[in-house]
Amino acid sequence: MDTTAPLFLALDLGGTFAFALNGALTALRVARLDIVGVVTLGMCTALGGGIIRDILLGALPPATFNDWRYLTVAALGSLVAFVFGRGLDRIATSILVLDAAGLSLFAVSGALKGLDLGVGAAQAVILGAITGVGGGTLRDVLIREVPAVLTSGLYAIPALVGAFLVVAGERVGVAEVPTTVVAAVVCFAIRMIGVHYGIDAPGPPGTRRRA
Amino acid sequence: MDTTAPLFLALDLGGTFAFALNGALTALRVARLDIVGVVTLGMCTALGGGIIRDILLGALPPATFNDWRYLTVAALGSLVAFVFGRGLDRIATSILVLDAAGLSLFAVSGALKGLDLGVGAAQAVILGAITGVGGGTLRDVLIREVPAVLTSGLYAIPALVGAFLVVAGERVGVAEVPTTVVAAVVCFAIRMIGVHYGIDAPGPPGTRRRA
Amino acid sequence: MDTTAPLFLALDLGGTFAFALNGALTALRVARLDIVGVVTLGMCTALGGGIIRDILLGALPPATFNDWRYLTVAALGSLVAFVFGRGLDRIATSILVLDAAGLSLFAVSGALKGLDLGVGAAQAVILGAITGVGGGTLRDVLIREVPAVLTSGLYAIPALVGAFLVVAGERVGVAEVPTTVVAAVVCFAIRMIGVHYGIDAPGPPGTRRRA
Repeated sequence: MDTTAPLFLALDLGGTFAFALNGALTALRVARLDIVGVVTLGMCTALGGGIIRDILLGALPPATFNDWRYLTVAALGSLVAFVFGRGLDRIATSILVLDAAGLSLFAVSGALKGLDLGVGAAQAVILGAITGVGGGTLRDVLIREVPAVLTSGLYAIPALVGAFLVVAGERVGVAEVPTTVVAAVVCFAIRMIGVHYGIDAPGPPGTRRRA
Repeated sequence: MDTTAPLFLALDLGGTFAFALNGALTALRVARLDIVGVVTLGMCTALGGGIIRDILLGALPPATFNDWRYLTVAALGSLVAFVFGRGLDRIATSILVLDAAGLSLFAVSGALKGLDLGVGAAQAVILGAITGVGGGTLRDVLIREVPAVLTSGLYAIPALVGAFLVVAGERVGVAEVPTTVVAAVVCFAIRMIGVHYGIDAPGPPGTRRRA
Repeated sequence: MDTTAPLFLALDLGGTFAFALNGALTALRVARLDIVGVVTLGMCTALGGGIIRDILLGALPPATFNDWRYLTVAALGSLVAFVFGRGLDRIATSILVLDAAGLSLFAVSGALKGLDLGVGAAQAVILGAITGVGGGTLRDVLIREVPAVLTSGLYAIPALVGAFLVVAGERVGVAEVPTTVVAAVVCFAIRMIGVHYGIDAPGPPGTRRRA
């Protein structure tokens, strides 16, 4: 799929918006930053995954810099979270749901962009996963948390599954709209199940289950 | 402006030298590292912003690697700080002033390089700000501090203002030397006012002023 | 040397394998992560240095993405460490030895790739050192440790020495196989001597030796 296609843009800008809200709410909750800190963390979270993806693809300058819509959506999402975030009753839940949404949308858009620029199938799957987890990892490093991708078993896995479904669908020849929608929904569902039941992947042999 | 012009080089190498001193003094003060640690942190701080800028512009290898002057200035600044840093009475103040100087010079040089390589006006402003805050953010991540760009209200804003003045001056057609000097001085002044009075940007609606 | 030559691939894949084991063992020891966290940290450590090198050289997409062997070796090393790591009596020693091995192999391969792509001699030395220390630095940032390159005097220095020997050998015209082997062995030996005797580089003037 051409990366200027409406479906690609909808996925990529949707992921940007979800991560902008997520990053800005995280700033409000964890670090109690002022407006500049909140918007900066929102924009880093929103744009980080796509920038890492485009650097790895050599597609420079990144889409963010060629297309004003990314900057606008990222800034808007951060400001919305700054203004309305304090009124949210369940800010922690919102943060987790938005993070899962951004993860899913970016895993799918990252895999699509990789295929579009001609990388191999395995590379497109990895690239989708990196795009999905990249923004949140940058967010966690900046606020000095150990990134969720290391501590949460079902974080990298749903991103890999979502990206894999996109690549498999393209190889099999399924139409793109159903493939991408199914891939994003499956990724989101796995991630939310992991969050809800606190599921981790298996620990090393000989260890007991962590509490 | 051509990025080989003397004015551009003066700004860019000046910023490199200021951040090399700043990073090395920070290493002496915060982490009490040995000479390798001090020089490494000095060079990461000095070269980080420009490398991020050149990656985002796709201008690879970064200027650091095509032009030995950057490496030399960064190493020299770090060594000077290592040798003379212990004798400084007011090391904390020096660190803040040098950081503001590097921020201003890099915000201006980043915006100039963006314009020179043909990115849009909004992108050149953002790129200038990223160049200004990039080295200090890398420094803070490496020594495990929350980056100043997140916690200090008047850190990203002066960088954005400085970069904006450069882009506005270029669009209006003012001569480059006065534009860049004014932009750097304004950025530096706003940052130092913020440091002096401990000014933060507004917090989220409904919160009180932080102490 | 052509970066598809068997010697280059052996060095680069050897470094990838050593750092994959090292990163995964570090995850087991420091952070007690589950299988996804262990493999993720192993792969970040294994691939981080080479990705930074290829970004700085503008050789994008990085070799990791053009060549499935890097991903395979990195994943394999991480899984081996996950399965057998718990049984290791002297896991801390293994981590240090593997880190020194990865450092040496990558310092040499980084300098070789820099020369192959035509950067200057000083730049090839710096690039080799960055390639050597890059993966371990990314690992330490992700698990919130201050990177070894800042705190350990004999970490950057052996990498610089190894890269320097490669560049000097190429300039003098010594055959590549003996040059690279000697360079890697010297780098490894200096690093292990530093670890064994706890040697740091000199502190700033006027300070006493740290304990």
